[in-house]
Order: sequence, then structure tokens, then C-alpha cells
Amino acid sequence: MNNRIKLVVKKMNEMDLDYVVVTRPEDIYYLTGYYPLSFTVMVIKDSIKLYIPNIDSTYAESCGLSFEYEVYRKKPEINLKGKVGADLNHINAKFYENFLKKCKVIDFSILEFRAVKDREEVEKIRKATKISEKIMSIAEILVSKNITEREAALELERIASMVADKAFDFIVASWENSKIPHAKPSMKRIEGNVIIDLGVKYEHYCSDMTRTFVFDERIYEVYEAVLEAQKEAIKSIRAGIRAKEIDKVARNVLREYGYEKNFIHSLGHGIGLSVHEHPNLSINSEDILKENMVVTVEPGVYTDFGIRIEDVVLVKRKGARILSKYKK
Amino acid sequence: MNNRIKLVVKKMNEMDLDYVVVTRPEDIYYLTGYYPLSFTVMVIKDSIKLYIPNIDSTYAESCGLSFEYEVYRKKPEINLKGKVGADLNHINAKFYENFLKKCKVIDFSILEFRAVKDREEVEKIRKATKISEKIMSIAEILVSKNITEREAALELERIASMVADKAFDFIVASWENSKIPHAKPSMKRIEGNVIIDLGVKYEHYCSDMTRTFVFDERIYEVYEAVLEAQKEAIKSIRAGIRAKEIDKVARNVLREYGYEKNFIHSLGHGIGLSVHEHPNLSINSEDILKENMVVTVEPGVYTDFGIRIEDVVLVKRKGARILSKYKK
Repeated sequence: MNNRIKLVVKKMNEMDLDYVVVTRPEDIYYLTGYYPLSFTVMVIKDSIKLYIPNIDSTYAESCGLSFEYEVYRKKPEINLKGKVGADLNHINAKFYENFLKKCKVIDFSILEFRAVKDREEVEKIRKATKISEKIMSIAEILVSKNITEREAALELERIASMVADKAFDFIVASWENSKIPHAKPSMKRIEGNVIIDLGVKYEHYCSDMTRTFVFDERIYEVYEAVLEAQKEAIKSIRAGIRAKEIDKVARNVLREYGYEKNFIHSLGHGIGLSVHEHPNLSINSEDILKENMVVTVEPGVYTDFGIRIEDVVLVKRKGARILSKYKK
Repeated sequence: MNNRIKLVVKKMNEMDLDYVVVTRPEDIYYLTGYYPLSFTVMVIKDSIKLYIPNIDSTYAESCGLSFEYEVYRKKPEINLKGKVGADLNHINAKFYENFLKKCKVIDFSILEFRAVKDREEVEKIRKATKISEKIMSIAEILVSKNITEREAALELERIASMVADKAFDFIVASWENSKIPHAKPSMKRIEGNVIIDLGVKYEHYCSDMTRTFVFDERIYEVYEAVLEAQKEAIKSIRAGIRAKEIDKVARNVLREYGYEKNFIHSLGHGIGLSVHEHPNLSINSEDILKENMVVTVEPGVYTDFGIRIEDVVLVKRKGARILSKYKK
């Protein structure tokens, strides 16, 4: 049993749980080093066991797993009873009905274990970030060349894919389209401004970075407001502070500029094996930042156009270390 | 209220439900024409209402929605009571706890409504399939050129993305890697055989097609077995037949060749707005095929290498119409 699983078992015992079930692929990878391709269930008691679907059987075999596992055809044959921990944000209601209905179910998430990173994990996020920076520098050249959003996004994803998996679909959004935070690249030519939001994976760990390039001087003022919001927010980060306080710092800066209501999403999120993970930097968050958490800081203003600036930072005892160096 | 919603309301009334909640983006698009970018909840009673998160507010506005909706910040303010229909395979346990705990919850899925396609939907799947065929013809040339799996996959995705969104990550898997049904393209050169599994979207509707190219005559026999399994399965398709019967036809052919245990997944699945949707063509399926369902037929054998052949077919009263024409 490795250290990560030991920590889970320790918490299980403290909470007096009989079992913990884990179904999120990233969680299973984090705990075992095995990355499921299809729906796999991990059951933790005083030992661990995986229930792997038949379609993954040849894959699991080729991975040479060193722990107990069973290949299932229709449904995994899991018999749980007593107090069971499970991630209620991840398991669906049917799984709950099938396997947990007779148990006392307690919300139990591996995301909280994953939130604080060890040195190797930080190094992987840093390497993913370095790749993002290189792609961003190509983006900066591309978007000044009378190109469409879609052409730019395609070219950037193509270049990225030569060296890494993308962490999510890249966003290239100009003017009208840039006012939509989750915009899809359109067939329109880039004009006025452009938001580039991109991320890749290095050994399964994600990066996430956004820059907005501005070609119209009338909107520099908005850019400055967002940049100041980001700077102030990053300045206020340190271990022990409430995540919602950081969100508030950014929101307060934008309020002074009159853009508070145009900041229509939360300030940021943890990042690691998933692009979005624990903790949550939003006005409603109950999370407290801890040393060696890695989070994004990405204020934005969305009006007739959008401006967003995003960096990944490492939370330290007395401050934050910015992992991405790309100029703003 | 459009006809699709009317059919849902009709079934709701038959089942004596007070509400139906819908959260799968494709379901919401199917019913309203609005494609949510972030977590959106649709509540159906005698009218419909959407609860759209703040981050999608500028997007929703730009879509000019013609139905009632409310933008929520923290949590949607939904008060459901009585008998409520919800898709238990899709909603997570937390949503269940937050919004449905006091209700009598009945499993209710929009996927069943989506399974039978109208003429426009079939046309869109056909157009997506036509694009797939063009990409497959490029694939066939590419894979004979001493190229790696990853290079081929990248190039195919790049070409695809110029005309359409991909429906899923393309699979290019040769020999060792081809024995894993959900393989990721590796850095190895293509040798012996290669499975190409690709699909794109045309106006949100997916295609899905697999061909295996064989360069080693020792494995032709396996190819022939899989091809015969597919042909026989397709021949047995018609409205009214049980989906599991079709799966059994393919499995029986492979048994005759001695490969039944190497067919480690189900025969196929419905396809439409999602790549995998209702019905399910597997040995455990309780589904019955209906006229104008669109399904994949994709038997495979996975031994030291893999062979899979997949086409999309339209179920008709007396047989099946193959939508993909690419040669086998």
C-alpha cells in the first residue's frame, strides 16, 4: 500500500468508514498509477481492489497491475455495507441506487488529498506550463496575421499536439465572441482583441493559461483593470487565507473601475491531474488555501468584448509563486 | 412548446409526474435548440424553464432565447416536489441530495426520445458520415507511409478540424496497441495492421466509423471472421428485433472461428447528438430496435493484435440501411 492510499485509509479510520469507493479516473490514477480508460470502480478497505470492465481487460493486462483486480462484464460485483465514503459530486444517482442504497453514505472526495501537491507534481505542472508559454508565443504572432479564430485555434492545437496532449479545447475568441467565457472559436477574423486560453498535459498534469491581446487602444483601460485585479489577487495569496477572500480582492478592484458586474465567473480553481479541481476560488467557496496547493487566478471582464488574464500559482506559506512567466 | 417537448409532457402525464428535470447538454439542445456551455438545469412542467449559470449569461443573451430562463450564481433556485422524473445515469448524487431528496424520483431519460431519428437528424448523421469517409480515405494513404500512430492521428484530426468538430479523439492503433479497444495513439510506427476509429460532428450530430487495414497476410483470417460477424449482424437488423439478438449473431459467428472470448466489448450503440446513446447493442441489453433508430455495428477481436470494423446503420422496418459506404 503506497503512502497516498495510506493517507486515505487513515482518514477512513478517523471517520469510522467501512469502505471508500472511487470512480473518477484521475483519482484512481493518483492512488494507483493505473489510468482507467473505461468505467472502473476502486474499493478501499484495509486493502484495495479494482473492478475493471471487460473492454479494458487487454489494456489492464498490458499495464501489469500489481494490485488485486477483477474484470467485470455487466456490472461489477461489489457488496458494500455499513458506512461508505464516496464522492457525491462524481458518482451518478444510478450507481448510488445500485451499490449504495443500503449503506450509510458519507461524502468523501479524493480531490481534497490531491489539492496539496508534492514536489514532483509541481514540477510536472511547471513543465506543462512551460509548453503552454511556448505555444502562447506562437499564438501572439499568429493572431496578428489577419487569421480567423478557428484557423488560429487549429494551428495552435496542431503544434501543441506534437509535444503533448491538450488539457482542454483551446479558446481563441475575438470581440463579440470574447464576451463568452467558454466561447468556441468561430470562423470570424480576429479584430480588436483576442482571448487565448490554452493548456496541455505533461505526464497527466495540466497547465492552464490565458492572455488577451488588445489591438484597439480604446479597450486598454479595461485590460489595465483586469491586470490590476489579477496582480492584487495574487499578492493576497498565502497559506491559511480563505479562498473567497482572494476572489473578493479581485472583485473589489474591478468594482472601483465599475466592472464588478461584468466579472461573471469565479476567480480561479485548483489544477493538477484535472484542469478544474479542488480548491475553488469563488465568492461562495468554503475552502482555505494550504501550502503547495496550485491554483489559477483568472479575473475577467465581459462587456461588448471580453478580457481575461490567467496564470497558475503555487501557494506558499508567505505568498504565491507564479508558475507561468509569459508577459502580460 | 415544440413537438419534442410536447411528447415529453405527454409521457410525463401518462406517468403522472409533477416535473421532469434535464441536465445533459445534448438533451437540452434536443428539446430547446439551446446548447448549454456550462451546468444548466431544465425543468419541465406544463411550461419549461432553464436555470443558466452566470458564466453562460453573456452566451445565453447572444443566443436570444425565446423561453423562460433565470441566471443563477451559486445554486439554481429550484423547488421540486411530488413525483419527479430525472435521468439517474446522468445526474450526480449531490444534485440528487440537493434537489430531489424530498421527492419521489423516477428514472426518466430523454435518450429514449432521442433514439428514433427524424429525417433531418438522419441527414445530419449521413453528412457527418460522408466527412468521415473522406478522412478515412486519407487515413488509408497515410498509414502505408512508415508513419507513427500519433503522427497519423494528428494529421487526420487536423484535416478533420478544417471542416468539422471531431466527435471524439481519433484512434490510430497498430499491433500491440490495437489490442486495446480504447487505445491512445502511441509514438510507435504502424506495422502489421492498424485500427482507425474516427468520427466528426455535422450540426452537432456525430459519425463513428472504424476500419482496420491489414499489412500482414497471417492475420487476414481474423479480419475475415470480424467482417463476416459484422455482415451477419447487419443482415439480422430490422425494427422489432431485440438488440441483444443482434449482438448474439455477431458473437456466434466469432465463436465458430474460435474468437468469441476475444470479442471483449458490446456490438454497438445508438448514435446521434452523442457518440454513445440509446439503444445499447450488447448481450445484456433490454432494448428493442425501432424504425429510424441509428446504431453502430462494430464487432472486434483482440488477441496479440486487434481487428475492428464499424459502420453506422439506419434501422428500417424490414432491414438495415448502411450509412457509411467506405470499402472493407
